[in-house]
Amino acid sequence: MSKIVPVILSGGSGTRLWPVSTGTAPKQFQPLTGGDSMFLQTLGRAVDRTRFAAPLVVCGPAHVAHVEADLAAGGIADARIIVEPAARNTAPAIALAALATLADDPASTILVMPADHVMTDVPAFLDAIEAARPAVEAGALATFGITPSHPETGYGYIAAGDPLAEAPGVRAVRRFVEKPPRDKAEAMLAVGGHYWNAGIFLMRADRFLAELERQHSAMASSCAAAAAKARRDGARIHPDPDAFLASPADSIDYAVMEGAERVVVAPVDPGWSDVGGWAALHELGDKDGSGNVRIGEVIAIDATDNYLRACEGKRVAVVGVSGLIVVTHGDDILVIPRERAQEVKAIVEYLATNPPR
Amino acid sequence: MSKIVPVILSGGSGTRLWPVSTGTAPKQFQPLTGGDSMFLQTLGRAVDRTRFAAPLVVCGPAHVAHVEADLAAGGIADARIIVEPAARNTAPAIALAALATLADDPASTILVMPADHVMTDVPAFLDAIEAARPAVEAGALATFGITPSHPETGYGYIAAGDPLAEAPGVRAVRRFVEKPPRDKAEAMLAVGGHYWNAGIFLMRADRFLAELERQHSAMASSCAAAAAKARRDGARIHPDPDAFLASPADSIDYAVMEGAERVVVAPVDPGWSDVGGWAALHELGDKDGSGNVRIGEVIAIDATDNYLRACEGKRVAVVGVSGLIVVTHGDDILVIPRERAQEVKAIVEYLATNPPR
Repeated sequence: MSKIVPVILSGGSGTRLWPVSTGTAPKQFQPLTGGDSMFLQTLGRAVDRTRFAAPLVVCGPAHVAHVEADLAAGGIADARIIVEPAARNTAPAIALAALATLADDPASTILVMPADHVMTDVPAFLDAIEAARPAVEAGALATFGITPSHPETGYGYIAAGDPLAEAPGVRAVRRFVEKPPRDKAEAMLAVGGHYWNAGIFLMRADRFLAELERQHSAMASSCAAAAAKARRDGARIHPDPDAFLASPADSIDYAVMEGAERVVVAPVDPGWSDVGGWAALHELGDKDGSGNVRIGEVIAIDATDNYLRACEGKRVAVVGVSGLIVVTHGDDILVIPRERAQEVKAIVEYLATNPPR
Repeated sequence: MSKIVPVILSGGSGTRLWPVSTGTAPKQFQPLTGGDSMFLQTLGRAVDRTRFAAPLVVCGPAHVAHVEADLAAGGIADARIIVEPAARNTAPAIALAALATLADDPASTILVMPADHVMTDVPAFLDAIEAARPAVEAGALATFGITPSHPETGYGYIAAGDPLAEAPGVRAVRRFVEKPPRDKAEAMLAVGGHYWNAGIFLMRADRFLAELERQHSAMASSCAAAAAKARRDGARIHPDPDAFLASPADSIDYAVMEGAERVVVAPVDPGWSDVGGWAALHELGDKDGSGNVRIGEVIAIDATDNYLRACEGKRVAVVGVSGLIVVTHGDDILVIPRERAQEVKAIVEYLATNPPR
């Protein structure tokens, strides 16, 4: 059995974590959750070289420097970096990675992981990979379904079907469910057998490319041409820009998974979060006795359930506030209620149309 | 009639405006209300040298540099500065000033003004001074009673009595009322004839000293000794420390006014504020259409009735908050609800017992 090739998709811009995360310095490269960046944490899940091959990172030109700095900081010397000439969503990105691994090993299996997720129970994730492996070897496309903790309306769901005989704990996928309204999310939790779609996949590279060819031959051929004419520069792989730009843009969910044959789901509860905003960081963080997450130099008096982040020599002092996000970064200070933390995008949009200083 | 000597009391530390105002750089020297510092605004009310003599500033050693820098910035070259060896509250401070003016002019009249108040209608204040002048020349101690706009519980009140025959609009003082509970404040507003005690006084220096001698001879003699043995250093007057430190500490209200003979009140509505906290600065400031005061680089989205102060290159961005104070100063960021703005003192106390970085 060949080793699994970790494929790290690092295309996100993470503007919901402004001002720390920005288009040029997105969240996966920031020490937001303590310790390593989320990018390095993601690589760390597949660092055991007896089970995993050297990783492949897919990112845009603006982030290559971040990727290389993090790889150096993490002591990961064997990674290769596919530099997308432009963003074409996840299906073409994964196609480039699949093509690169096939060149090394016609039987290669890839583990696709977004670079900006957190997992607190990595062994549970590794167990799920092992559980899915026999089905994947036999040709299935495996998703990892996160056990839902609440009726979240911000994620897609996977409806699981029959258990597989050849892979205990793994189940056929009945269907993919788009981000549901609240009542539908509650109904799915009540009935059971529904999981969050975390965008993590395990599959044979040849099987993924065959499905892409079958469902989206234009995308498949554009990516194949871009990979065939790729330019190499040390660990960097530069797909041919003209060929790649000819590819339609689409997600792996729409372009491949929803219409694919033999899709399975490995249910898992790895303490997962996509760190989709400041409220998620409040949830993930260590709290004081009043439910405040305090990072850096913080004074909090009669204050409850706040996320208070003072960085780079700043000092944040609050009195009598509750449920607030207060974040400093550089010269920026953000104040927003936790329950409205997603609306930070309104500031990012404002800044995009009103150039800063 | 001799000119009035403005006496500026600059002893306050203004910790209710932390982090901008601190013990070493108190609020009267900060450009908090736009334009000049409150110290210079106070001097500016008595800048007409046809009516007012050169001013006397009373401050502590820690603030002399601020005073001199502000005087230079304001182009006020004739001021003298009494440097108190230690704080002994307002009665001894005013005694030192009265003694200094008497040395120049035995008939001197002093106008005592705290350095950290705002007035938006200075002509109204000057008119009230003129109205009180005849009674003061005849020996009365005049207070200025601010027309109350609301039943404030944070100020003392002056209950006015009969109008004076010799000074139209000026009234005898019936009594001084300590900071009242809410219901008593409301009752005073309802009945009328009650004014806020702003700590502003007009009186002949000899009359003030005579009252002090009569009511507090120990204080009077300590101050007289401190003034007699004062050391001069350019515009600075250094009262003798040993003599001054022997003086009891007390306010002019308790030590003199409450027990004095012939106390009068000149009612006035000069758009007065003692800028007693961040909520007052919200009240005083120019507001946008949503009731936000914005100072410096501020982005406010779906935000109402906030005081948002971004200084020194900082940028404050808020979404969906209401009634908040957000203040940056140096590396400090304060977030506190407007209605609890007085509790900023809890932070100052915390910092006093937990030394900063």
